[in-house]
Amino acid sequence: MMKPRIAILVGSKSDLPIIEKGINILKKLDVPTDITITSAHRSLKHTIKIVERYEKTGIEVFIVCAGLSAHLPGVVAGLTNLPVIGVPIGSSVVKGLDSLLSIVQMPTGIPVATVGINSVSNACLLAIEILALKDKELKSKIKNYRKGLVKDILNDNKNLKKRFSQEK
Amino acid sequence: MMKPRIAILVGSKSDLPIIEKGINILKKLDVPTDITITSAHRSLKHTIKIVERYEKTGIEVFIVCAGLSAHLPGVVAGLTNLPVIGVPIGSSVVKGLDSLLSIVQMPTGIPVATVGINSVSNACLLAIEILALKDKELKSKIKNYRKGLVKDILNDNKNLKKRFSQEK
Amino acid sequence: MMKPRIAILVGSKSDLPIIEKGINILKKLDVPTDITITSAHRSLKHTIKIVERYEKTGIEVFIVCAGLSAHLPGVVAGLTNLPVIGVPIGSSVVKGLDSLLSIVQMPTGIPVATVGINSVSNACLLAIEILALKDKELKSKIKNYRKGLVKDILNDNKNLKKRFSQEK
Amino acid sequence: MMKPRIAILVGSKSDLPIIEKGINILKKLDVPTDITITSAHRSLKHTIKIVERYEKTGIEVFIVCAGLSAHLPGVVAGLTNLPVIGVPIGSSVVKGLDSLLSIVQMPTGIPVATVGINSVSNACLLAIEILALKDKELKSKIKNYRKGLVKDILNDNKNLKKRFSQEK
Amino acid sequence: MMKPRIAILVGSKSDLPIIEKGINILKKLDVPTDITITSAHRSLKHTIKIVERYEKTGIEVFIVCAGLSAHLPGVVAGLTNLPVIGVPIGSSVVKGLDSLLSIVQMPTGIPVATVGINSVSNACLLAIEILALKDKELKSKIKNYRKGLVKDILNDNKNLKKRFSQEK
Amino acid sequence: MMKPRIAILVGSKSDLPIIEKGINILKKLDVPTDITITSAHRSLKHTIKIVERYEKTGIEVFIVCAGLSAHLPGVVAGLTNLPVIGVPIGSSVVKGLDSLLSIVQMPTGIPVATVGINSVSNACLLAIEILALKDKELKSKIKNYRKGLVKDILNDNKNLKKRFSQEK
Amino acid sequence: MMKPRIAILVGSKSDLPIIEKGINILKKLDVPTDITITSAHRSLKHTIKIVERYEKTGIEVFIVCAGLSAHLPGVVAGLTNLPVIGVPIGSSVVKGLDSLLSIVQMPTGIPVATVGINSVSNACLLAIEILALKDKELKSKIKNYRKGLVKDILNDNKNLKKRFSQEK
Amino acid sequence: MMKPRIAILVGSKSDLPIIEKGINILKKLDVPTDITITSAHRSLKHTIKIVERYEKTGIEVFIVCAGLSAHLPGVVAGLTNLPVIGVPIGSSVVKGLDSLLSIVQMPTGIPVATVGINSVSNACLLAIEILALKDKELKSKIKNYRKGLVKDILNDNKNLKKRFSQEK
Repeated sequence: MMKPRIAILVGSKSDLPIIEKGINILKKLDVPTDITITSAHRSLKHTIKIVERYEKTGIEVFIVCAGLSAHLPGVVAGLTNLPVIGVPIGSSVVKGLDSLLSIVQMPTGIPVATVGINSVSNACLLAIEILALKDKELKSKIKNYRKGLVKDILNDNKNLKKRFSQEK
Repeated sequence: MMKPRIAILVGSKSDLPIIEKGINILKKLDVPTDITITSAHRSLKHTIKIVERYEKTGIEVFIVCAGLSAHLPGVVAGLTNLPVIGVPIGSSVVKGLDSLLSIVQMPTGIPVATVGINSVSNACLLAIEILALKDKELKSKIKNYRKGLVKDILNDNKNLKKRFSQEK
Repeated sequence: MMKPRIAILVGSKSDLPIIEKGINILKKLDVPTDITITSAHRSLKHTIKIVERYEKTGIEVFIVCAGLSAHLPGVVAGLTNLPVIGVPIGSSVVKGLDSLLSIVQMPTGIPVATVGINSVSNACLLAIEILALKDKELKSKIKNYRKGLVKDILNDNKNLKKRFSQEK
Repeated sequence: MMKPRIAILVGSKSDLPIIEKGINILKKLDVPTDITITSAHRSLKHTIKIVERYEKTGIEVFIVCAGLSAHLPGVVAGLTNLPVIGVPIGSSVVKGLDSLLSIVQMPTGIPVATVGINSVSNACLLAIEILALKDKELKSKIKNYRKGLVKDILNDNKNLKKRFSQEK
Repeated sequence: MMKPRIAILVGSKSDLPIIEKGINILKKLDVPTDITITSAHRSLKHTIKIVERYEKTGIEVFIVCAGLSAHLPGVVAGLTNLPVIGVPIGSSVVKGLDSLLSIVQMPTGIPVATVGINSVSNACLLAIEILALKDKELKSKIKNYRKGLVKDILNDNKNLKKRFSQEK
Repeated sequence: MMKPRIAILVGSKSDLPIIEKGINILKKLDVPTDITITSAHRSLKHTIKIVERYEKTGIEVFIVCAGLSAHLPGVVAGLTNLPVIGVPIGSSVVKGLDSLLSIVQMPTGIPVATVGINSVSNACLLAIEILALKDKELKSKIKNYRKGLVKDILNDNKNLKKRFSQEK
Repeated sequence: MMKPRIAILVGSKSDLPIIEKGINILKKLDVPTDITITSAHRSLKHTIKIVERYEKTGIEVFIVCAGLSAHLPGVVAGLTNLPVIGVPIGSSVVKGLDSLLSIVQMPTGIPVATVGINSVSNACLLAIEILALKDKELKSKIKNYRKGLVKDILNDNKNLKKRFSQEK
Repeated sequence: MMKPRIAILVGSKSDLPIIEKGINILKKLDVPTDITITSAHRSLKHTIKIVERYEKTGIEVFIVCAGLSAHLPGVVAGLTNLPVIGVPIGSSVVKGLDSLLSIVQMPTGIPVATVGINSVSNACLLAIEILALKDKELKSKIKNYRKGLVKDILNDNKNLKKRFSQEK
């Protein structure tokens, strides 16, 4: 097994279904990743140890997912100088607006790179873009992924045109 | 100097003007209080030490004030079993709604007793109500404070009636 | 039966399912509690009597749950000098944001200790933290509860690691 | 002095400037009005007495103005079967959205007739429309007031046209 | 059949289910009511005729229900000097917040008495309170209705106590 | 004087400063325009006449500006089959969000082409784009206007580069 | 097949169900339309080509539908001087409020004619109103469509009256 | 002059004051940076050329600042595989909430690393953290910057303690 380059921290077991859907991109692009459940409140001292251990093992980017008051990404960002990507999870009745504001509105000095509500996929892609800065293989993989996005749209469009012409 | 019973933690120097206005109530009711600036992100490990030191010195209630993403109250609540009162500071362009949601929407297990945006006064009064549970002197002080509130309204009302009757 | 230390007031029968889920923590930690349905609008004078009776019987903390305009916590706070914890219930089409703002934005002088939307569990834990200030047994119970939270996360994490290693 | 038909209750002295601007309409239309400062939280029992006294003296409509959590209109509505008009005052950092939701989202059974944020004028006009149902003189006064509104717009329009034709 | 005293205007057929649930109160209290579907946009001129006809037949209060941009209550209020009660219907994806703001934020001069989102019941009760000002029979009916509300809560409470004591 | 092609309706005299700033574009591009103050509520019947008169005189596009509950654009759209552009004016304490939602969330059948809060300029440009569909001269004017926008940015950029290089 | 006059651009395959429901109006009124899936981000250069090609083939109005950050309408508006109608799609957890603000709040110079969330029907009707400015046949079609709206309401109303009279 | 590693794109000249305040950090840490004004709407094709030129010259990270509908960060992210950091500028009447949602809610495939409203400083720090992954000198600079943050807080705290002890 390769040494993980990305560490995903998840604030609660209940967020896992959203996380798992997102990490398929990391698997497809073969980026070694490690995932841990930890909490900024219920297990703060474990979180500190986990972040420090990850830093020692050479992790390069953190992806941190949290719902509700969603303090975990900010806390991790306070513990490391590595880039921290925050994913607001829309688990509350206010649908993640609480988590979005809590993650993105960090004080000057400690940034969190925030992506859209529930958008673990984009967090993973952002992490890959960052790693690709010093990794040509990854750079070409992300280029291919992007080409795939274009191809998908052209295909969707072709299918749409076909269906519409048949309807007439 | 008496041993402090309440510890006020403030996330940033810039929040001090709002804080100071509020702590007059503590002074008036003679509740020994200590105040410290610390950050959940910029100085997390100091924050941990500060909370632990306060616990040892016998602090009974924490009042924690923070603006923007406002993680400090939640982080303190994760570090202590003492009651933690959170005050959202309306310092951001979204006027404290970010801080309010970030402080109040804590995950199950780690409560923060949240008061209104910028309402340091109410945080102090809540702390006093909590301390008064085992302190008869304080109980009678808070009773008098409440009576004062009623008196003030009755006075405001009298002045209003006077002014209106003079206008006629 | 032990004399109740916490009184839970609920604004409407329809809020009971959310309340009942939350009070398991009080049962588990053996904190004698009494629960009453009353309304700030439909039965204001009964509410006053109920609050006064509870005060006389030695209740120490109020937990007050209400949805929609959610005036009950504020009204109770106006009637007692005991700590009042408010729980916004997300029963309206705007999902409890109305109740949250209505409960938390109290005027200076009468605080309500507000917890997250629907978060009756955290209201109960906050009440226990307050009671534990003068009750060593409760203090050790809450300590154990907190340890349980850490254990749960470590377990969740272990299960996660197991599942991921099996997938490979 | 005539017996007051409308009672205006105001939650706080600080709301008076907004209230006073609005009550000019009542003066112009000669509707006898009484105004009192009282609080749903700081002086609840006085509020009950005030409402009951007003009811006995034959008040027909209540106008209740409050900012922040703004419970006063709902509390008054719970104490009387007379129509209660609620005015959210935009005194908080969230600019009255808190007060609006708190006043308008009343539970089934106890309505509050809510008008726009800070719109004491409209509260007064609504009260007059209600009183006019059984008062022909008032009905003709409100008709004239409405005609005045149309005249004002036609005048504003004339001035606008004049200015624009002069600019050319 | 008695001459209707209240006219309910509904902006769209799709709002009828919410309306119908609410008008049971009017039936129970025997207040003769007429209901019409009309639109501020699709059938503005019909709306004008309908409002004028209702005024001639002696309608005393309008209840106007509308979703989305919800202009109907304001338009009716501009056409009549009678009290107009507006009910925001939560039919849009933003759950009625659009309708609430659109109905309540009327310009100075033309008030709409706004009730909570979907709260047709409270609109009907408010209308009855207004009519009761000059109708002793209605006044005693609304008094009984209020007594019923208290009785319901006391009953709900009794059932709750019974269930809890059985659980022990 | 040329026959006006665009009619601007303004809900209130107080909105004129924002309107006037915007109509400079119409003057610069020489599009004959007429402007009228009228209200959806205070002068609804005048509004109907004004819209019908404008239609007869050959107006092609309406620009309708309104603040607060902002019903005027929707009401005009219900009265004409011509394109209606709505401009929310941020005059209320909630800064135009009320007006935006009220203008844009029209029911199916009666569209209003909504532009940004206070964005009278964009309303005018949209009107010109619509008129340009059958007016080659206007089409070339708008093309030039757009070229001017690009030129402005290139100039702003040049100034920026100059300033930065001087700073070094 | 007739040359298309309206081009509908859709940001994502997943938005098609909402789009298709809306375009029935264009079919009924026989307005030749072309529809294409393209993205402002995933296929920006294709989008540029598509817009330019449509302009050459004589398209007169663009309808652009997008969810989430919804940049497509603004990007298209930057590429053409033709009128661009934007439809926010409520596909995100925040229910289209993100898309609405993103589409409507365009900078001065590049307007987007925004309609309500998910309101493709109104986008189509607005496009027809614009085309009808130089197309008498279309003008009479839209007039008939509007008459149909009135007829529908009168019918809905008749059915309502029938049902209510039967209930009695 | 060193080859720039970071490119800052700004949507409008009016945003420059906020940007300039932020870029002091880049100057202090000696990170060669280039800054350009360009618009996603008014000068889209220039934007494309600018992004492509920057990519060729070896830029590693983009920081893109925009207010109102704020499409520029997303458009740049669609044009490059390099990391794009988006800064919402609070220039609109809704104070940047529009820009925040527009920047952060990107569709799957094209992430934008969003920071807080107006938080250009954090965007610069995030960019440095990313560059530091392959640059030991920068890594030690950011470490020192972070130490400075801690020192500042400790100093602020010392001053606070001094002032409070003097007050007594």
